[in-house]
Amino acid sequence: MKLTILGCHSATPHENKNPTAQLLDIKGHRFLIDCGEGTQVQLRKAKVSFVHIKHIFISHLHGDHFYGLPGLVSSFRLLGREAPLHIYGPEGIKEALLFLLKLSNSNLNYPLHFHELTSSESECVYEDDSVIVSTIPLKHRIYTNGFLFEEKKGLRRINTDAARTFGIDKSQYRLLQNGQHIKSLEGDVIENAKVTFSPHPEMKYAFCSDTAYHPSIVDIIYKADWLYHEATFLNQHESLAKQTKHSTAKQAAEIANKAQVGRLILGHYSSRYKNLSLFIDEAKAVFPNVILASDGAVIS
Amino acid sequence: MKLTILGCHSATPHENKNPTAQLLDIKGHRFLIDCGEGTQVQLRKAKVSFVHIKHIFISHLHGDHFYGLPGLVSSFRLLGREAPLHIYGPEGIKEALLFLLKLSNSNLNYPLHFHELTSSESECVYEDDSVIVSTIPLKHRIYTNGFLFEEKKGLRRINTDAARTFGIDKSQYRLLQNGQHIKSLEGDVIENAKVTFSPHPEMKYAFCSDTAYHPSIVDIIYKADWLYHEATFLNQHESLAKQTKHSTAKQAAEIANKAQVGRLILGHYSSRYKNLSLFIDEAKAVFPNVILASDGAVIS
Repeated sequence: MKLTILGCHSATPHENKNPTAQLLDIKGHRFLIDCGEGTQVQLRKAKVSFVHIKHIFISHLHGDHFYGLPGLVSSFRLLGREAPLHIYGPEGIKEALLFLLKLSNSNLNYPLHFHELTSSESECVYEDDSVIVSTIPLKHRIYTNGFLFEEKKGLRRINTDAARTFGIDKSQYRLLQNGQHIKSLEGDVIENAKVTFSPHPEMKYAFCSDTAYHPSIVDIIYKADWLYHEATFLNQHESLAKQTKHSTAKQAAEIANKAQVGRLILGHYSSRYKNLSLFIDEAKAVFPNVILASDGAVIS
Repeated sequence: MKLTILGCHSATPHENKNPTAQLLDIKGHRFLIDCGEGTQVQLRKAKVSFVHIKHIFISHLHGDHFYGLPGLVSSFRLLGREAPLHIYGPEGIKEALLFLLKLSNSNLNYPLHFHELTSSESECVYEDDSVIVSTIPLKHRIYTNGFLFEEKKGLRRINTDAARTFGIDKSQYRLLQNGQHIKSLEGDVIENAKVTFSPHPEMKYAFCSDTAYHPSIVDIIYKADWLYHEATFLNQHESLAKQTKHSTAKQAAEIANKAQVGRLILGHYSSRYKNLSLFIDEAKAVFPNVILASDGAVIS
């Protein structure tokens, strides 16, 4: 699992500060999460091939999470994309994008599928053999979802030295990977655990932005390996956070603490703060394993 | 008159290449012309105060000329703007912007006025005491206008040395600026030309992007001091230019030549060309006074 922070700042425009967008590499997928203005250029900077992006998850329809999407969808067309693209986001996203495409008289040369979200309960929005993506209903000024990306339990891993010692043929490996015991040539049962290792642990990433302090997400994101949680403000501006339905660094850390996540990643800083290390200090007092997102950073 | 090139590249996204946007300083106005994705950050880089932008002219609704506008309009709101904003552009621009604002549940705290354009003839879209702005109907894949910015004739300028010699009181200066003769204390007529200089020449800027080769614009842009004309392609790709309704550098120079403009500024280069000096070479063979637009350049 690898997370590339394409942008992690809040809405006011600044040179060298990009609004929210992330690319999650997980089990062979490259999921784009939010798409603020300038995301396509940030993807170029990160040397991400556009064609590998097949699923885009939009948390909410504030511009700093969404206004890069029309340009990206148009660029896919210009670049000759043929692969289908799936967009998951709040109701209205389809009408907005299709209207903009109609105004530009652009017929897409690839299938564009919209998955509009309206539920206020967590729901599975994507699933395949290796990954499940579910919504995390958040509390913001407009309808907003975070997203939980969960790897499914993988195959057991062959202990090739042990397997050789038992004289196991490679044609039997698939059975072992599935956890089955097998028989030796002599007819003896070879216990699976003797010739395999446990599967890699399933990783879990929770993306939560934008949101007020909202402890009811704790059950959904419980024991996530990584939690990205917005921290627009410091505690000194808690009332402003409440008023604008954003969080403080302290509140983000409290959520991380309650949910017993592995690591907290902070972002979506208000541009009023020049010294971002204050966010770390504030969060660390509550939850020790915390890092600051920064544009272009790769977390793995 | 001062022109800041905020972006001058065509649509495909590249690091450090911005789509079309320009800021024209003319007679105390700061007119924004087109607003491709990333324009608000380009304005920040150019240290342009957002509050001074009161009129935005959009040539057409392809994303690389327009997808920076929703973010800019939203940022104006975030930054507490109260001054009215006027947007001039093709029909549909109002519905698109208002729908995006509705989705983000953003009530603007400033008046937003739309001036939707539908005419295929040149028309005056803005006029005050010092400036007139007219459309330049262009020939592109969708409805597109360039814009002609013309300074009005200014006041005559006082020759203060001469005025002092004639003993003229400053209270008479306004009459002189308006071209009138005045009487001395002795009752003699003082001819205006003896104590004034001609007004500054009226500058004229023509912005023409995107367009196929379209000589019928020549009458409208005749003798413009500066002409920005798109040159997406070189002559070697003339058939591609024709097909996509863009121009070559040679065609842009032919328009400049026919219109007898002062200076030709090229831009909107396709990303296929690595060596932009070929655009200069090709244009110079037809029209000598030509420069290449580049992101961040200031022309005055």
